[in-house]
Amino acid sequence: MTENAETAETALTDMANQFLEATIPVVYNGMGLRFADVRPGIAAAEVPFDGNANHLGTMYAGVLFTVAEVLGGAMAFSFDLSRFLPVVKDMQIRYRRPATSKVRSVTSLTPERIAELQSIAEETGKAEFVLTAELTDESGEVVATTEGTYQLRAIGS
Amino acid sequence: MTENAETAETALTDMANQFLEATIPVVYNGMGLRFADVRPGIAAAEVPFDGNANHLGTMYAGVLFTVAEVLGGAMAFSFDLSRFLPVVKDMQIRYRRPATSKVRSVTSLTPERIAELQSIAEETGKAEFVLTAELTDESGEVVATTEGTYQLRAIGS
Repeated sequence: MTENAETAETALTDMANQFLEATIPVVYNGMGLRFADVRPGIAAAEVPFDGNANHLGTMYAGVLFTVAEVLGGAMAFSFDLSRFLPVVKDMQIRYRRPATSKVRSVTSLTPERIAELQSIAEETGKAEFVLTAELTDESGEVVATTEGTYQLRAIGS
Repeated sequence: MTENAETAETALTDMANQFLEATIPVVYNGMGLRFADVRPGIAAAEVPFDGNANHLGTMYAGVLFTVAEVLGGAMAFSFDLSRFLPVVKDMQIRYRRPATSKVRSVTSLTPERIAELQSIAEETGKAEFVLTAELTDESGEVVATTEGTYQLRAIGS
């Protein structure tokens, strides 16, 4: 990886965090949620344990949902935002085990799939796609998984 | 309804809010979410629009999830908590239309269903059940619906 590529990738993660702080302060300030890695086709976020626990000493279910839900917003940067906008339609979270540490979420789309979705949206005005995310605790154990359905809309359609 | 019954019902809603403030401050203080009506078999919550909007001027998707998710906690008061504890397994939210006002969520279980679930959990150690919730805006329009799967666990099983 060249130095320029590294800088460009950090820049996208920074931009996603600035966007998050400006648009959903309740998530950025209230939960302390941050994007950890945002690149074309990849999005990862992290949320701290402190301040987000419930009375059972485990991370609150709504925080786990949120650290996965925001990935959809970060994945928007994978599309040509001058022509398309992704919109969330539904989302399901499966709770696997209690989380007692910070949690990291990650999702991805291949470059081929992104190109295909943009092509469909360009032709028909919209393209539906599914993002699956895995949430892991500090030791790497899966604490939850999510599946969200999104619609990529051609702007002006 | 007698005056005593009214007082008892207000008391349960107040208790649920005190519990929420103590256990999930990020939701109580950060989002300003409050239980509006908690009685055996019924739970309703409300979340204000101010402070919970995104850059599109609509309520953030994670806030809509949360105002439904907390209903599961309030419905715990419908069970004999000295013998049973409900645990969330998975939850799905379907976004129907953007919310541009405060949002109210409501869910319910019949007394017969509650008795049946406690009976099953008593016999087998656990009973699975589904809670569906409807989220409406100030004008009464449905903005989202959720379906959560819970397990009622007999304590000690």
